[in-house]
Amino acid sequence: MLDFLRPDGRKHDELRSVNFQNGIAPHATGSTLVKFGNTQVICSATIENKLPKWMHAQGLKGGWLTAEYSMLPYSTLDRKDRDISRGKMDGRSIEIQRLIGRSLRAVLDLSKIQEKTIWIDCDVLQADGGTRTASITGAYVATKIAINRLIKDGVIKEDPFKDAVAAVSVGIFYDEEVLDLNYHEDKDASVDCNLVMTGSGQFVEIQGSGEEATYSEKQFNNLLAIGKKGIKELVQLQEQAISI
Amino acid sequence: MLDFLRPDGRKHDELRSVNFQNGIAPHATGSTLVKFGNTQVICSATIENKLPKWMHAQGLKGGWLTAEYSMLPYSTLDRKDRDISRGKMDGRSIEIQRLIGRSLRAVLDLSKIQEKTIWIDCDVLQADGGTRTASITGAYVATKIAINRLIKDGVIKEDPFKDAVAAVSVGIFYDEEVLDLNYHEDKDASVDCNLVMTGSGQFVEIQGSGEEATYSEKQFNNLLAIGKKGIKELVQLQEQAISI
Amino acid sequence: MLDFLRPDGRKHDELRSVNFQNGIAPHATGSTLVKFGNTQVICSATIENKLPKWMHAQGLKGGWLTAEYSMLPYSTLDRKDRDISRGKMDGRSIEIQRLIGRSLRAVLDLSKIQEKTIWIDCDVLQADGGTRTASITGAYVATKIAINRLIKDGVIKEDPFKDAVAAVSVGIFYDEEVLDLNYHEDKDASVDCNLVMTGSGQFVEIQGSGEEATYSEKQFNNLLAIGKKGIKELVQLQEQAISI
Amino acid sequence: MLDFLRPDGRKHDELRSVNFQNGIAPHATGSTLVKFGNTQVICSATIENKLPKWMHAQGLKGGWLTAEYSMLPYSTLDRKDRDISRGKMDGRSIEIQRLIGRSLRAVLDLSKIQEKTIWIDCDVLQADGGTRTASITGAYVATKIAINRLIKDGVIKEDPFKDAVAAVSVGIFYDEEVLDLNYHEDKDASVDCNLVMTGSGQFVEIQGSGEEATYSEKQFNNLLAIGKKGIKELVQLQEQAISI
Amino acid sequence: MLDFLRPDGRKHDELRSVNFQNGIAPHATGSTLVKFGNTQVICSATIENKLPKWMHAQGLKGGWLTAEYSMLPYSTLDRKDRDISRGKMDGRSIEIQRLIGRSLRAVLDLSKIQEKTIWIDCDVLQADGGTRTASITGAYVATKIAINRLIKDGVIKEDPFKDAVAAVSVGIFYDEEVLDLNYHEDKDASVDCNLVMTGSGQFVEIQGSGEEATYSEKQFNNLLAIGKKGIKELVQLQEQAISI
Amino acid sequence: MLDFLRPDGRKHDELRSVNFQNGIAPHATGSTLVKFGNTQVICSATIENKLPKWMHAQGLKGGWLTAEYSMLPYSTLDRKDRDISRGKMDGRSIEIQRLIGRSLRAVLDLSKIQEKTIWIDCDVLQADGGTRTASITGAYVATKIAINRLIKDGVIKEDPFKDAVAAVSVGIFYDEEVLDLNYHEDKDASVDCNLVMTGSGQFVEIQGSGEEATYSEKQFNNLLAIGKKGIKELVQLQEQAISI
Repeated sequence: MLDFLRPDGRKHDELRSVNFQNGIAPHATGSTLVKFGNTQVICSATIENKLPKWMHAQGLKGGWLTAEYSMLPYSTLDRKDRDISRGKMDGRSIEIQRLIGRSLRAVLDLSKIQEKTIWIDCDVLQADGGTRTASITGAYVATKIAINRLIKDGVIKEDPFKDAVAAVSVGIFYDEEVLDLNYHEDKDASVDCNLVMTGSGQFVEIQGSGEEATYSEKQFNNLLAIGKKGIKELVQLQEQAISI
Repeated sequence: MLDFLRPDGRKHDELRSVNFQNGIAPHATGSTLVKFGNTQVICSATIENKLPKWMHAQGLKGGWLTAEYSMLPYSTLDRKDRDISRGKMDGRSIEIQRLIGRSLRAVLDLSKIQEKTIWIDCDVLQADGGTRTASITGAYVATKIAINRLIKDGVIKEDPFKDAVAAVSVGIFYDEEVLDLNYHEDKDASVDCNLVMTGSGQFVEIQGSGEEATYSEKQFNNLLAIGKKGIKELVQLQEQAISI
Repeated sequence: MLDFLRPDGRKHDELRSVNFQNGIAPHATGSTLVKFGNTQVICSATIENKLPKWMHAQGLKGGWLTAEYSMLPYSTLDRKDRDISRGKMDGRSIEIQRLIGRSLRAVLDLSKIQEKTIWIDCDVLQADGGTRTASITGAYVATKIAINRLIKDGVIKEDPFKDAVAAVSVGIFYDEEVLDLNYHEDKDASVDCNLVMTGSGQFVEIQGSGEEATYSEKQFNNLLAIGKKGIKELVQLQEQAISI
Repeated sequence: MLDFLRPDGRKHDELRSVNFQNGIAPHATGSTLVKFGNTQVICSATIENKLPKWMHAQGLKGGWLTAEYSMLPYSTLDRKDRDISRGKMDGRSIEIQRLIGRSLRAVLDLSKIQEKTIWIDCDVLQADGGTRTASITGAYVATKIAINRLIKDGVIKEDPFKDAVAAVSVGIFYDEEVLDLNYHEDKDASVDCNLVMTGSGQFVEIQGSGEEATYSEKQFNNLLAIGKKGIKELVQLQEQAISI
Repeated sequence: MLDFLRPDGRKHDELRSVNFQNGIAPHATGSTLVKFGNTQVICSATIENKLPKWMHAQGLKGGWLTAEYSMLPYSTLDRKDRDISRGKMDGRSIEIQRLIGRSLRAVLDLSKIQEKTIWIDCDVLQADGGTRTASITGAYVATKIAINRLIKDGVIKEDPFKDAVAAVSVGIFYDEEVLDLNYHEDKDASVDCNLVMTGSGQFVEIQGSGEEATYSEKQFNNLLAIGKKGIKELVQLQEQAISI
Repeated sequence: MLDFLRPDGRKHDELRSVNFQNGIAPHATGSTLVKFGNTQVICSATIENKLPKWMHAQGLKGGWLTAEYSMLPYSTLDRKDRDISRGKMDGRSIEIQRLIGRSLRAVLDLSKIQEKTIWIDCDVLQADGGTRTASITGAYVATKIAINRLIKDGVIKEDPFKDAVAAVSVGIFYDEEVLDLNYHEDKDASVDCNLVMTGSGQFVEIQGSGEEATYSEKQFNNLLAIGKKGIKELVQLQEQAISI
């Protein structure tokens, strides 16, 4: 049987070309410009030597990691107003930055970065689908670079990372399960699912939504299968990017 | 083998006592006070005879459904400040109200409610875990009551609902997969998963998160299994509540 | 002379049916759902073991009581946008919550609740005129229940209440002075007056406004007379509700 | 019997020295700087040739009058932050500007200023008690001047004012009923009452509040009596100021 | 050669009539109502016995001066909405208040007012061009009066002022360089330049902007020349105003 | 005489290394990443086919150009909070974006881009002094690229640019006039001056400020001289960048 023909010629379980340009933001402790095809996100990790107020208020110890996500106004085909012009963040961005934070914290032992906050910033330079999965995948690279620098500088002793973390989207596009959807596929997909997994194959987050549609258990299992394949490849690319 | 002992004596795959008190908000088109054990949510559906501005701007036709979720200040053990006092909605509430909206829209044919917006409001009166799943489950009942009234009054001709929709939480509590977590279970759960499914057993939304934890595919499959059992029971309770 | 015929058949000096459903919000220290006819308000009192910042800043001792008032979106015939959606509280709600706070503080000896803040929350579930007077009347019941619990639990020693407090509206409707106006009367009244009085018949607050109208001293005296009658009845109903 | 000795030597039923400096804001249609002793308020009336949006939305005809009240930062002994620095108006200012608007509208026949909005602005230059009553009293003068100019210029044909309107405070200070309280009296008063009345002696608004205190009907009647005397004098002073 | 005819008959290098009415805001430590022709600004200086938070956070010592600028709603020909009604300050006002603050700080030795903040408030009562230069010129007078009072009261020992400071606008109007533009000149000027200078002739700030226009070095030098003349006259008028 | 030794070894009238990386934001109509030494700014120009509301309201024709400026959180040595987190733009950013807009509009004939708005976005990726002058210099390149594309695509017929525009900072650092200050020079400079000039040597904007300092006319003339030299070089570099 011939494979399903995707708009950009990819196979149904094929990632877009993925790469990392480290050091894009020299003032951050770690940074990378991650590309999933035409989707480009500036990911940075900055270390602050204090904890958020709510941790102090609750008497919590250890460290913390928090993430912010934003689309630059020129990242979309039609210019997107800045949050500050509209007076509030849009709900979608809030959802995404909470997801990025949870994903990174799931693979970190924060007790190993006492009294420090890691700030993750993901700013989308060009949006072509999958900005949240590119953000998580790039944020891991930026944070790992930052952590390696802290260890090298003797600021912390042990690596707080328990595992790597990467993310990819899968979805149902014209009744076919496909991996790593670009904007045109995403727009027409009936089901949109984002997988966040660790380097050792554990799940961190599964988010499968049918906007004005539903899906069967069989379809969901197919999505999980191609998603796991994609994550495996992304984790390898992350390793190569960090080792440079 | 003896079943796992839960704090409130329930079996691992047992729902809390669920019921619906319809008509709680007489000025809404449809309303119900849904209870999942001690969790109580006022759910209402109000019909407005116009579409949101963005639909007009994009030239979209048909109808729309939008949802708002809020915790009343006295719903929690420590009083929760109102959104307006803090100057913004918290991110968690934004995530939840977007989920409620998507869940209801997935089972509605909005082309059948031309030029109307259905406003869903979910206000938590008492919070004891599972407020988002109780909200979705109650919002379906309130909306179905509202739709039935519109049909009876001759305002719309056909039922826009393609199926029922209900939601339940599942999670891993002390290494055991459990159904419909209350607050104390939720607080200590390593994995928290919310399932939204239709009356006919299709998935609408799967959200599985490990906050500072990860989970295996086997664990995930166990969670899905008990979740599906819970949804089946909820859909029956919804039917009874609506038919009264 | 025959009495004036009111739209709902009441005499000019007759209250609507008033009752209290205590314990509506189990997580509050005290709560009641007060009904003045079709007007329903959830009133709760929550105790917080600290004082507001401005009291510390001014070096003030004793305790404090503060009130918040809000209309739930489905409480009105046309859905009312939430404050957070509009970005600010409306002026009317601010006026009302300030009035509720002043009314309760007038009958409390706050020096008897050292270092505690009583939070009053009044959320209107159904609005049919008189929501501010129902709120004050219900807030007293909720607060008295909360105070009784604190005394029973040994948290405070003496009852800080010096007297009961209740409120009722009076107004001029088609040239007739009437008691406890419902929405349709209120809308067409030329003068609207709210009376807050104590159990022993002292005034706490008199607010008489003619919106695009004025009134004579004789009319005002008639309004006071029927208002005092209404307050006397409300205070008895409050006592019964609390004693249960 | 000797009269009660007030801090500034006035009799209990004596106004402070009151005067009006018209034309303080030359770009407004009408303006005056009103002084009640040391209390000084810039009052202006500006005519805008359109109605507020909500009137159009509700299909209302005629004209409208709206008021804004603000304390300049240097009007108080300790500098008061601007509303825009605190991010919101304080509740007291909102109450006052709503009261100013209602008071003026009560004596206006707005159908005579078709498709116009009168903007009243009251900015307190120096605060020494009674800023709201000085604002209402000055706002009438500013508005009457503006109306006279419109009539003279042939913009409107008939005077929309049905009567004059003035306001004064009365209160209980060390058990004595006193008229037109200054800041030091106001601060220590157990009961604070604001009267708004017309030139012909009708009531527009009565607001009597006991902050942490209550009052008897006899006390209230005494307050009304001296308040009426004060209003009579203020109305004469207004007439003189306008006729110049 | 005959001099260029300006709309109000002034010579090209002639100031409008300038005067100062000190004590306009009696509760401020120092205040003046400055007039540049029809432009009128209430300028006040209030002393607060604490430093801004950011100075404490950065461990800075000495004193501070901060300025706020606002246009009263009735200062313009068409009523201007208040900042709080629009929800934010306009960019122009922010620019102006930053300029006022920098200008005053340039001539102050803040180490001589330990642990004090000088608050400058400039509220425009009537706007007819040059409100920012009138504000700076008046703010110096108000602050100098306040400082003189502090010295007289023994609160500070040495005068922190190193020099006087004044400001004037110059611009190119129909190809002619003119001094102190009024609103009609300003509106049609191709180049608008604001000069802030000290009593001894040093520059504090030069801001020359061509809105949709550019200018040559020769033109700029002509502007500087007439500006210096205007500043010299303003400094003399300031001295007279303070010495009264 | 030997030239003054600057921290990075430059001569007093020497620019940092300047270059442009065009096409950094592919979804914008024109974009460039401009570098002035370590200062890096993403500059983009996006064309929107409508005018701002205020132009319609004022009945204005032609086109418009508006600019937004922001510092990315990781552009500074200590992470800078996003505007949306602080709830408002900081005053410095507002000043800068207004300057960018005025500078570009001064060299554009907006009547040649009927019914179009050019949106300039300048996002600082790395801040090392001179971000506003780099932004203006880069914004011209991005806008010129965008205009060239519109002409090539036949969307507009004539080039609206009347001239090129570039900007550079000059300042007094340890009593020496220097060109194009980096962050360490800027921090210690007593006078900071920004020059905006056209390709043909006309002034667009001169902003010279002494923060807690003043300067003489001789010093100012020296600053202008080296600034003009810098602008000349920048204009050549812009031409090269555009011609590629």
